[in-house]
Amino acid sequence: MFAMIAIGEVNSLSYEDFLEIFGNVVEKCPLVTAAVWSARPFATLADMEARIAEFIDSLPAAGKAGILRCHPDLAGRDLQSGTLTAESEQEQVAAGLRSLEPADATRLRRLNLQYKERFGYPFVICAGLNDRAAILRQLAERFANEPQRELPLAIEEVKKICCLRLRRIVASDIKL
Amino acid sequence: MFAMIAIGEVNSLSYEDFLEIFGNVVEKCPLVTAAVWSARPFATLADMEARIAEFIDSLPAAGKAGILRCHPDLAGRDLQSGTLTAESEQEQVAAGLRSLEPADATRLRRLNLQYKERFGYPFVICAGLNDRAAILRQLAERFANEPQRELPLAIEEVKKICCLRLRRIVASDIKL
Repeated sequence: MFAMIAIGEVNSLSYEDFLEIFGNVVEKCPLVTAAVWSARPFATLADMEARIAEFIDSLPAAGKAGILRCHPDLAGRDLQSGTLTAESEQEQVAAGLRSLEPADATRLRRLNLQYKERFGYPFVICAGLNDRAAILRQLAERFANEPQRELPLAIEEVKKICCLRLRRIVASDIKL
Repeated sequence: MFAMIAIGEVNSLSYEDFLEIFGNVVEKCPLVTAAVWSARPFATLADMEARIAEFIDSLPAAGKAGILRCHPDLAGRDLQSGTLTAESEQEQVAAGLRSLEPADATRLRRLNLQYKERFGYPFVICAGLNDRAAILRQLAERFANEPQRELPLAIEEVKKICCLRLRRIVASDIKL
């Protein structure tokens, strides 16, 4: 997609190029990326991650729920029909969500629906850090949460997804 | 695109359908639409507009600048290459921006560039309420503004664009 770039190069990008490269680090929320351009220069990749997290945290609860609503269902219609973003498709396939046993697929669909009914947004989890068994387990567990407790948990997953996506684009800060 | 729908129907939409229908009332910012779903039920179309405006106003300055950065240039590359959103294309063409005299096209391109240099976001104006002469005049005028004065002016234009887009989708509240 893009060659890895160093943080110094990131800091010199126009907002248009910045958006082109980082526009989907938070799923379908280029507004977040575009806002964080204002926070340049970033000292390190970790600093860039922190600035994105800060901006997300600054949003009112409705804005946080809005971010979650921009996410697709796990193993949902978009995965079947090939209409996921490239990033989501890669993550969901790697987590084994395209090759679910029929029983697991049915269970996931049912739990997803119940979750959306309860919270008004889809279940979001960092698929890059969880296999399908862990995803199913956590979906069942998090469904039992109070809404006030669930929203920040879901937002922490958004940040994890964002960090993994960033690390596929920006070269690590670690000096060898 | 969609048949006009009444505010009562809007209130009964799932967040997925709401996003599908209203996701681009703020250009490339489905996050705004998705956030405002939390504010249902809307008493009237005017109430829906007010809730969107309220959410935008609740954003920190970087978030407001972020919204502006999600907008395309007027008469820019995306208009030439056909990569505007459907809404933007319709608005820019109606304002006469596809049929600019070469001298006006050159002037607009130069002023746009200077504006982006100065403010760090593109010049946004409600093309549906301004013809090309008014757009060129306002671009030159607003370029002279202090950044602190220009940001809220540009955001008011975002709200006007949003209102016009909404009124093409939601049936008016006016009782005859």
